[in-house]
Amino acid sequence: MRIALGIEYDGTDFLGWQRLTHGATVQGALEKALSFVAAHPVEVTCAGRTDAGVHGRCQVVHFDTQVQRDPRGWVLGGCANLPRSVAVLWAQAVPEDFHARFSARSRRYRYRILNRPVRAALDGRYVTWERQPLDAARMHAAAQALVGEHDFSAFRAVSCQAAHARRAVLAVSVRREDEQVIVEIEANAFLHHMVRNIVGSLLPVGRGEQPVAWVGELLAGRDREVAGPTAPASGLTFLGPRYEAHWGLPAEVSQ
Amino acid sequence: MRIALGIEYDGTDFLGWQRLTHGATVQGALEKALSFVAAHPVEVTCAGRTDAGVHGRCQVVHFDTQVQRDPRGWVLGGCANLPRSVAVLWAQAVPEDFHARFSARSRRYRYRILNRPVRAALDGRYVTWERQPLDAARMHAAAQALVGEHDFSAFRAVSCQAAHARRAVLAVSVRREDEQVIVEIEANAFLHHMVRNIVGSLLPVGRGEQPVAWVGELLAGRDREVAGPTAPASGLTFLGPRYEAHWGLPAEVSQ
Repeated sequence: MRIALGIEYDGTDFLGWQRLTHGATVQGALEKALSFVAAHPVEVTCAGRTDAGVHGRCQVVHFDTQVQRDPRGWVLGGCANLPRSVAVLWAQAVPEDFHARFSARSRRYRYRILNRPVRAALDGRYVTWERQPLDAARMHAAAQALVGEHDFSAFRAVSCQAAHARRAVLAVSVRREDEQVIVEIEANAFLHHMVRNIVGSLLPVGRGEQPVAWVGELLAGRDREVAGPTAPASGLTFLGPRYEAHWGLPAEVSQ
Repeated sequence: MRIALGIEYDGTDFLGWQRLTHGATVQGALEKALSFVAAHPVEVTCAGRTDAGVHGRCQVVHFDTQVQRDPRGWVLGGCANLPRSVAVLWAQAVPEDFHARFSARSRRYRYRILNRPVRAALDGRYVTWERQPLDAARMHAAAQALVGEHDFSAFRAVSCQAAHARRAVLAVSVRREDEQVIVEIEANAFLHHMVRNIVGSLLPVGRGEQPVAWVGELLAGRDREVAGPTAPASGLTFLGPRYEAHWGLPAEVSQ
């Protein structure tokens, strides 16, 4: 039987999603908890791996088991055996051909920038600090050049292992909410560090150091060395993937 | 010279506001940082002391010094010498008759309840979890009985050292924002645990276990033993005091 789970996590104290032998990871903590509930070793596959310090609002994973458990049993048993920084939001039996990664039609990320003269004390785990005033409308305009299918080599980490750099950005927005500037981006899939590199290139536009057209020029140039620096991990949250409605998953991960 | 400061803090890792000899407090951390900047011992007086685990969005303090510093010097020097969980938001010279506590005309608090079947992973420091569905409109209606000047003995901690229990609640609201129920309350002053005890009595109304009129009945009965339990500290944030406009303080703490 194949089970899908929605997972929320605070990435601050983890070395990232992917299981490692030498430190705490979200996958490691989750597999340990689920193995305890299942009473057999469980390996999970996720919709999108996240880096150290990056958070998850509704990561989706699947795993296979022969054990019969009520969905509620996976949720309660999972939560009871996970550290406080990880929670199982929901569980649902899915067809054998559902795959958390390959069935996902798109992924959504949010990046939060605290934009004021003083660093964060509250919410410091969930924001990145920018002291120079940002023009969110200018950043929003600049970001629209990313919409559509493009080669995103300009925003790709050197360490990225993807076969090619073509990705389709479905929507991107930048807005201000009081002291914060919020970037949201949805794409069919993302390259390694793609969101943080895009944010790193939107910041000079927001500060007025680069023209609005700069982000589109960076994209066209496909040269990672010209674009802005990688924005810090703390501001980034993986909101989650989206799947076709026929899988019958919860609304927050359905198209 | 008298200086007023706005202070933001994450109370999770502190034993509360008030200086103690045996553990970390916000006042202790702040006085240590300001004494370093002033190069003489600094003692601060705050608008409202908070308990262990309670957060501050814009606490206000004042202190006296003979040292000449640019307001920016207090902000930057303070932040540089404070732990990450405390920040100085602004500094301003004030008249000698300004007093952070006695000049405050009112105080505002916010209480955040995560209302869903699963405990928090993200934002766990800033919310309290309630798994039973809450009717925020019902809680809002019940809370309106608190508005006005009353004897709040029903919502007063046994340990409260105030001379009397009469306080004037200026406004109280309860609203839902997605998975959260937010309680906001403004009063001329608060008794010890008053907000957390009010929230503890609004919860049974929100769950449908008590009628809307119950909160008003508790208030009239003045009996702490009948009211709901004290809600946990983590959900509570002291938004800050409000002063008369003639002091010329920043808008967030001005009437």
